[in-house]
Amino acid sequence: MKIDAQDIIQGSQLAGARLIRLLEEEDPAGIAILKQLYSHTGKAFVAGLTGPPGSGKSTLVNALISEIRSRKMRIAVVAIDPSSPISGGALLGDRIRMRRHSEDDGVFIRSMATRGHLGGMSKTTRGVVLVFDAMGYDVILIETVGVGQDEVEIAQFAHSTAVVSLPGMGDDIQAMKAGLLEIGDIFVVNKADTPGADEVVEQLRAMLDISNRSQDKWMPPVIKTVATKDRGITELVDAFWQHRSFLFDSGQFEAHNYQWEFHFFRHLVMEMAADRIFGQIKNSPAGQTLFEDLKARRIDPFSAAEQLLEGLEYGK
Amino acid sequence: MKIDAQDIIQGSQLAGARLIRLLEEEDPAGIAILKQLYSHTGKAFVAGLTGPPGSGKSTLVNALISEIRSRKMRIAVVAIDPSSPISGGALLGDRIRMRRHSEDDGVFIRSMATRGHLGGMSKTTRGVVLVFDAMGYDVILIETVGVGQDEVEIAQFAHSTAVVSLPGMGDDIQAMKAGLLEIGDIFVVNKADTPGADEVVEQLRAMLDISNRSQDKWMPPVIKTVATKDRGITELVDAFWQHRSFLFDSGQFEAHNYQWEFHFFRHLVMEMAADRIFGQIKNSPAGQTLFEDLKARRIDPFSAAEQLLEGLEYGK
Repeated sequence: MKIDAQDIIQGSQLAGARLIRLLEEEDPAGIAILKQLYSHTGKAFVAGLTGPPGSGKSTLVNALISEIRSRKMRIAVVAIDPSSPISGGALLGDRIRMRRHSEDDGVFIRSMATRGHLGGMSKTTRGVVLVFDAMGYDVILIETVGVGQDEVEIAQFAHSTAVVSLPGMGDDIQAMKAGLLEIGDIFVVNKADTPGADEVVEQLRAMLDISNRSQDKWMPPVIKTVATKDRGITELVDAFWQHRSFLFDSGQFEAHNYQWEFHFFRHLVMEMAADRIFGQIKNSPAGQTLFEDLKARRIDPFSAAEQLLEGLEYGK
Repeated sequence: MKIDAQDIIQGSQLAGARLIRLLEEEDPAGIAILKQLYSHTGKAFVAGLTGPPGSGKSTLVNALISEIRSRKMRIAVVAIDPSSPISGGALLGDRIRMRRHSEDDGVFIRSMATRGHLGGMSKTTRGVVLVFDAMGYDVILIETVGVGQDEVEIAQFAHSTAVVSLPGMGDDIQAMKAGLLEIGDIFVVNKADTPGADEVVEQLRAMLDISNRSQDKWMPPVIKTVATKDRGITELVDAFWQHRSFLFDSGQFEAHNYQWEFHFFRHLVMEMAADRIFGQIKNSPAGQTLFEDLKARRIDPFSAAEQLLEGLEYGK
């Protein structure tokens, strides 16, 4: 079961799947391999696809895979699934998707569960994207079922984020749109053959017009798709590619990559620092007193944190 | 505009609203007041309500408010709204809700936007809950529109979490249920007068039966509601109260409170430690070199974080 970094770099799906498993389990051995892979990353185009439940994202992803394969590129997909890993939901989803592309080694699909971790998507997803990147996939597609925080997170990982809407959703979706405007580089109205599609397109265009987009000079297109009939898929892939060119030409592609690295780096530092601090004080008498005081509400957490960090020295 | 902690403790909604504003803006003055309030907190019952878009949560919340008021308790509501604060979505929602309860000073409703923050809900929501608690509200209800991460977060803040389903949602909702089983203390099937309601109830009960619930000996009830007609609302409030009694009797109420405090404390320590570390190295030559190496991918973020933390000493 030893994983060789070289196998990953040569694209072995077996080795890739094993490494992802290690990362999900937060096994330090996984990190050790990521370190070796790191210099082989930074090349892939990372696309995000997000939208509410029932917007047909899975079908859309399947159609996108076929279109991208027909353009002779290799694609890896990570589906962020809010259901439990135990539920079988993730596995079932995998199996259904895989069926269509299971004979094709230019396609690699993984579902990931994120339950139970605060910001749990961030760390593992970043790792998985690095693995796909090192494996040499041209396109990495991150799919999330999300209406809240998850969408903000996906935008932090993807060069281009496509936001899927559909005709006739309720008030929650309407209220959400303004928020989604901020993260969408491309807007997709799926199920565009059902009533109300043109209204949603109009609404989105109107909102995009009044929002201040001049800053980065990219005007997000609104694309109608019928994923079940492969309609609009070529246009969608074209839009991703236009946005990719725009990012390259404006220097934003590299800027994105560095921003992610830095964000990820800061997160690692935070976690490692906390581990170290709590590890050091856990068994100290002063630490015990602090925890007792917290439990009895004799001290508030803000003052406790300040008190704890007084002793912290960065001596380098 | 100076806020007096005493006004908060006496329940001034004006002072409460101002303090929440400070917390949302991450103004240190807000934290200073929270510290003074802290010893007045830990009494409120915190209930969570979560469900997918379109499940009628807002109507349900309104009905819950009326029922809880009829039982002579004071209630504060925080609605976690994934839309942008600029969108007006949050404000509109507030206005619609407030209309029904605007004459009643036993009710306090706030909407909060969470966009743009990784795990942004956690910090501010925890603060807002502390403010409501100090203001003396008996019940604090946290409402989230969420299908992913947000629901996990709500469960970390609430003594009791009610998960709202509704008849006839798509595959995404079905896939989600297993995950939701883990966080729900109470299950609500809203819009129970529409076709398919009994099937959802059956499905939930069957899933609850096979999941291992023996550990904490609470069997989550499944309650049918029609929020628009105030049906099932008494039963829902009763269920919250039964769960509250269960938590008190089993010592879990206090355990929950301490767990939140500790979690919040750890988060504060993480953030403060990172601020301090980055503050100290930002302008140092060694720090500059590290950032340059990261940008050029000459070093991976794991090794960089380890290198950075080598110099960290906890001297207390």
